[in-house]
Formats: sequence, structure tokens, C-alpha cells
Amino acid sequence: MNIAILGCGTIGAGVARLLLEQGELLAGRLGAAPVLRHIVDIVELEDPRLEALRSPTIDTVLEDPSIDLVVETIGGTRVAYDYTRRCLLAGKHVVTSNKDLVAAHGVELLELAAARKLRYLFEAAVGGGIPVIATLAEDLAANRILSVHGIVNGTTNYILDRMETASQTFAESLAEAQRLGYAERDPAADIDGLDSGRKLAILAALASGRLVDWREIPITGIREIEPGDLALAESLGCYLRLVACMEAREEGAASDLRVAPTLVPRRHPLAVARGVYNAILISGSEVGDTLLYGQGAGAAPTASAVLADISACMRTAWSPAVALRWEEAGPAGVLAAAFRGVLRPRDDQTRERIAELVEAEGLDLEPLSDRSGKTVAWRRPAAARDGVEDLAGWFCERGVERVNWLHDLADGRGD
Amino acid sequence: MNIAILGCGTIGAGVARLLLEQGELLAGRLGAAPVLRHIVDIVELEDPRLEALRSPTIDTVLEDPSIDLVVETIGGTRVAYDYTRRCLLAGKHVVTSNKDLVAAHGVELLELAAARKLRYLFEAAVGGGIPVIATLAEDLAANRILSVHGIVNGTTNYILDRMETASQTFAESLAEAQRLGYAERDPAADIDGLDSGRKLAILAALASGRLVDWREIPITGIREIEPGDLALAESLGCYLRLVACMEAREEGAASDLRVAPTLVPRRHPLAVARGVYNAILISGSEVGDTLLYGQGAGAAPTASAVLADISACMRTAWSPAVALRWEEAGPAGVLAAAFRGVLRPRDDQTRERIAELVEAEGLDLEPLSDRSGKTVAWRRPAAARDGVEDLAGWFCERGVERVNWLHDLADGRGD
Repeated sequence: MNIAILGCGTIGAGVARLLLEQGELLAGRLGAAPVLRHIVDIVELEDPRLEALRSPTIDTVLEDPSIDLVVETIGGTRVAYDYTRRCLLAGKHVVTSNKDLVAAHGVELLELAAARKLRYLFEAAVGGGIPVIATLAEDLAANRILSVHGIVNGTTNYILDRMETASQTFAESLAEAQRLGYAERDPAADIDGLDSGRKLAILAALASGRLVDWREIPITGIREIEPGDLALAESLGCYLRLVACMEAREEGAASDLRVAPTLVPRRHPLAVARGVYNAILISGSEVGDTLLYGQGAGAAPTASAVLADISACMRTAWSPAVALRWEEAGPAGVLAAAFRGVLRPRDDQTRERIAELVEAEGLDLEPLSDRSGKTVAWRRPAAARDGVEDLAGWFCERGVERVNWLHDLADGRGD
Repeated sequence: MNIAILGCGTIGAGVARLLLEQGELLAGRLGAAPVLRHIVDIVELEDPRLEALRSPTIDTVLEDPSIDLVVETIGGTRVAYDYTRRCLLAGKHVVTSNKDLVAAHGVELLELAAARKLRYLFEAAVGGGIPVIATLAEDLAANRILSVHGIVNGTTNYILDRMETASQTFAESLAEAQRLGYAERDPAADIDGLDSGRKLAILAALASGRLVDWREIPITGIREIEPGDLALAESLGCYLRLVACMEAREEGAASDLRVAPTLVPRRHPLAVARGVYNAILISGSEVGDTLLYGQGAGAAPTASAVLADISACMRTAWSPAVALRWEEAGPAGVLAAAFRGVLRPRDDQTRERIAELVEAEGLDLEPLSDRSGKTVAWRRPAAARDGVEDLAGWFCERGVERVNWLHDLADGRGD
């Protein structure tokens, strides 16, 4: 199988090196080694082995009938979208690590690929080298997927882990993550939860066959998380993590999707993910709880996942049964379940106002105290009896906004 | 695809029910539902839907050319071996949960299948519903597998977990496991580590392409584990678990294989496996550390894995690239690395004798004390400088035998 790589940044170069260096291993396992023929990038490449294969335009690839498969590691949804379409139209399989593109145009690109008996594969789009896509798409084929809870963003996990273990502020941990290359210079997509939201849309589509517009998912990032939240989590025997969550209601119906800072009990399987690691807990109707854990990013793990997709293309011919098919879920595809967890005011004034409202309105909120006996937060029970469904909205209407809402895996269906 | 099931015990019946009940789900995902045509069992079946499909002999299956795939859930290596051979010779794919048979005759049966362009698949043989076989055989295709550390036996994990959390003796926890159906009436294969050894042979074969005779693997079970071992583990910040371990040396060479009670640091990924759960940590050259976790046994999870294999047969035609090929590793396939970990005498006399020998012979062993300051165990450093390679043998020669050897994941390459 002859291969071209589009976009030779960190991940593209990782894939290129793996193809050049692991030829013998792959030939032994796949019968023949995949052959890297072209790399498309406008920038000159440092590694002379890669530069020797470089073309500045995609035309070289489109016009070369010997190319069977294209690896798209450009990222984003503009050029990558255009090139992916053109490669599929030219009869080439496409393998990608581009979660933005899959989340935005997955339905269309999968359909385009299937219509031409081609594969559009994206194991590397979620969880780096962790085989979560294959697990959902193939290994759990006999299961209805009841829920998926994932720590799918290494940057935010690193920041929250360091805020806890090194007693740092959010700004300090973010700066450290940037220094170590774990966070981008513009970290918004990670820390505001957008990256997790896109990955959640993909996981939910694999579970349900329907792709929601990820912008419909209620997303809360970690920008407002303070040391007080970490201290509260610790006092409750929990870690605080950014968790992407899908909980299925009845079959065929919309799912409850959310990305939010979440209290993860220390003995919960997701608690295994420390530092930049990812972990995804899948609950299936037959298999029960299954967890996958590993490095969610980085050149080598992501390249490993790209190679898994290339191997799949080499091993198995296209058939209707191997082709993923997603529908658009439409705006009604996302349900927001009632809040379950802990709310923590970020200042004293808000704290006092909540205390007043809880008493005056008989809200079903259990006060949580710090060691000195001062109420610092309130816990919302799983089945609140005060009739307030949208508690955050209820407080917001009353001018109470400086509150961190911490979902709780111990106190809901996700336990 | 038409299917027959051989042996309708717990797992066979689980597969049968899943095929009968999840037809619509499977048809949606695979293009067509697999159809259960025959169940071979000598005993009458309680469920009338299953009894209606029952034949007392395998001839019904062998003589029915419409049967494409046979599920072997007989267990053991006698009848199952004979029937598996005959089904492959009759041109039928075979899917099994039978780790004993794969460990004993995997090389021959894979070869027989490949020669006839048939699949012999066994996702259910290790880790129940956890997709560990697919991960090693397919998803990590671009990785050299550096090590595998697995808690692959739910019975022993339950017993050790209960000895710790309920402060029970081995006998009490075993009796409880038997009462709850987690342990067989004859528990030897589990508690003596033989089941873990067979599964380790399969995992190592997937990692290296060479199947060792599992009887060559150094195996220590948990029969001699005492509350004192659990207390020692706790004082060291560890759980005590039965871990099956493969550590690769240089490529193509023998691997260091072992099944042994092992100290697992509380923050180690394997520590996630509590109760009857299994967890397998795979270290790949590209992907780094990846953990898979879930229910390692039980009718529904195991049936889920059998269905994953049936799905694979339906999705992908046979090709040389999908066929697993193993060689026999021969008796030189297993290396025994020097002991790293903690040794704990089981009685005072042995304790005193070890203390004497440590002092007299200058052994590189660091004493570990309990709260009262009494030495209760010794830790062997990763690189001992006393020149004694086979420490257990060394002590044994000197009449010191009542010792528990606890391997240590914190103090070696498995960290």
C-alpha cells in the first residue's frame, strides 16, 4: 500500500518516521510494509529523509494513481476538509487524527467515503494511542452503549493534577503546562473544554450512530477552577477532573451529554488518569464497565493510532459491514439532565446569598463545611425534591453567578 | 452467517442468548444478523428456545454445509481439541473462549485454520469482555511490545482484595468467593496461578509471535499468602495482587515471564482492578503505557467478546494479513530475571535464620520493620551487588523455605 501524508507537523512527522523506521515490523505483521511516497507541506522539512519526499501541493498526490491511502494531519476544518474531500473523490482512503474535522463534517465525509467503497478512519482523533474508536466501533458490537465517561484532554488533566499535587493556582499550573509543551500558547480550546466537547461528540456518535453538533453540548471548562475547588474535592475523597460524559436514555432517543469539572472518587476507575494521561470508561449492556487508559496525545502515541488505521485498511477490504455510518442528530440530540453534584461559591458574598436562598426557598441542598465548620459548598442530591430542574439557571436569574458547579460521579448514574 | 455453539454451559448459553436477543442491533451494525442454527450438548437445556436448537452430537454441525462458524465453549483440551480440528477441517471458522486449548494447541490450530483460509479467534480467552486480544493483534500493530503486566484472574484478585479490605484469612476469603460463585469448588487452577499462566502464554504469544509452553513459566499462586503479607503490602503503600508479567528482552530473544504475588503501588495503573475485575497494562514502543480494564469473567462479558470475534468474521474476509501466526518458542523461550521485591518469612524461626544469613553472608537485602521496630521482611534492590542471582534457590539450599516472595512493580522495569 502506497501512502501520502498531508501536513508534516508534529504528528505527521511522527507518522512518517514510524513508516520509515518500522517497515520490517509492519511487513512481518501485515504481509507487506506500507510505503511512504509523498509528504505534502508548504514548509521545508528539517529531516532530510522527509524533505526528500516533500511536495508543496496536493496535486502531486491527487495525480499519482499509485497512492492508495492519504494521512491527513493538517488539523482544522478548512484546508483539511477540502483536501479530505478531494482525496476521497480521487479514490484514496483517508486516515486522520483531526478531531475538529470529524466532529464538524464526520457525517458527510463518512458518507462520501462509503459511496466510493473507501475508508475514512480516525482512531487517532480521540485518546491518542488508546484504541477507543476500535473498541466502540468493533469490539463492543454486541453491546448497547449505556454511558461513556472520559478524561479526554491531557492539558486540562495535567493542570488540575498539578493544582492538587503542587498546591498551585490555575494560572501557575497553566504556565507550567505551557513551559513543558503540554499546553498551547493559546490554550482556549483545551481549558474551555472545546477539545473535550468535540471528542465527546465523536464518542457519542460511535455509541449511538448519530453525530450531534458539538456546539449543542453543555460545556464548562476549568478556567474558573480555584484552589478552593481542589481542597473541597480532597475533603470529599475525590479528585477534580474535566470529564466528558455521555449517558444514554432509552434507545434511539437523545443522550445526556456534558463536559464539566467533575468530582471523581479516588477509587473510581477514572481516577487512574493522572498528569497528561487520558482514560475512558465505557459501560456496555453486556460487557459492563470497561476502561481504556493511556497517553492521549504526543507524536508517537498518535502515530501509533494512525498506523493502526493504516493496518486496518491493509488487512481488510471495504465492505458495507466495515463502513461506519452516522446520521446528523439535529439540535434535539442533546438532553441536559438535572444537575447532580456540588456547587461552590467563589466569593463570600455569593456564599451568603446562596445560604439565604437555600433557607428562604427550601432548596434541596445539603451544606458542606470546611474543618472550621464554615459552610463552603452545597451538595445537590441525585433526586432533589424542590422542583427546581435547572438549578444553575434558577440561581442565575437571582443574580447568583460566581459559582463553580462540580458534577459528581459518586452521586449519579455514572458511579 | 450461520452459527453453531458447541457446549452450552454458562458461557455457551450466554452467547446463545445474545445471538437470539440482539439480532436487530447486530443486523444494524453488521449488515446482517448472525443466525444461531445448532447447539451441541449432551445434556437437556432448561431454556426452551435453546433446547429447540440442541443436537446431542457434533455430526449435525459437521454435516450441515450452511454452518459458517462454530463457537467452541466446551472448555478443556480433549473434546474441545478434537471438535475444533474437525470443524476447521470441515471448513468452518472457530471462535472460542477456551484459554486452555489456545495455550496448549494454539500454534497448531492457527496453522490449520490459516491453511484453509479460516479464522481461529479467541478474544474471550483472556480478560473476558476486555478487548485485549484485538488491541495486541491489531491496534498496536506498529509497536514492539516491551512488556505486559496483567491481573487476569478474577478469583485470585477477589480473594486478595477481600483479605485486605475485610481482614480475612485466605481460607475465609476463598470460602466467600466460592459461596458467591467467583471461585470453583476445586479452585486449584485459579489460586495456584495456572489459569493466569495459560493466559500469560497467550498474551506473550500475541506480543512476540511465539507461544511458550505455559508449563515452562515460573508460577507462584496465592495459597500461601497470609494476612501478614497484606499488612506488609499496606505498610509499603501497595496492594498485593497476582500479576502475570511479560518483559521483553532484545527483539526475537526469549522473554522474562512470570506469575507471582506482586506488590502494586496504590497509584500504579494496575491498582484500578479491585474485586473480580481484571486489568492489563501494555507497554508499547510507540504508544507508551496503555491499560485495559473490565470484567474478566462472567457469562455476559465473555459472550460480548465472542460476539466481537463473530463480528470480525462477518466484517472481514480471510487474508494472510488477518491470520495470526505463532511459532513454538521451545523450552528456551522463558527467561527468569533476578528476583526484585520483598521476601517475607512465614514464621519466626525462618525470620531468625534469614537475619543470620543476611548478616553472615553480606546479602544485599534491606530489612523492613513493622511499627514495633521488629524486622518482618527484607527488600531486594533492583540491582543487588552480592552476586546471588537465584536468591530463592540460594535460601532453599540452606533449608530456608517458608518464605513468601512478593514481586514489586515499584522497584523494577514494570514501574
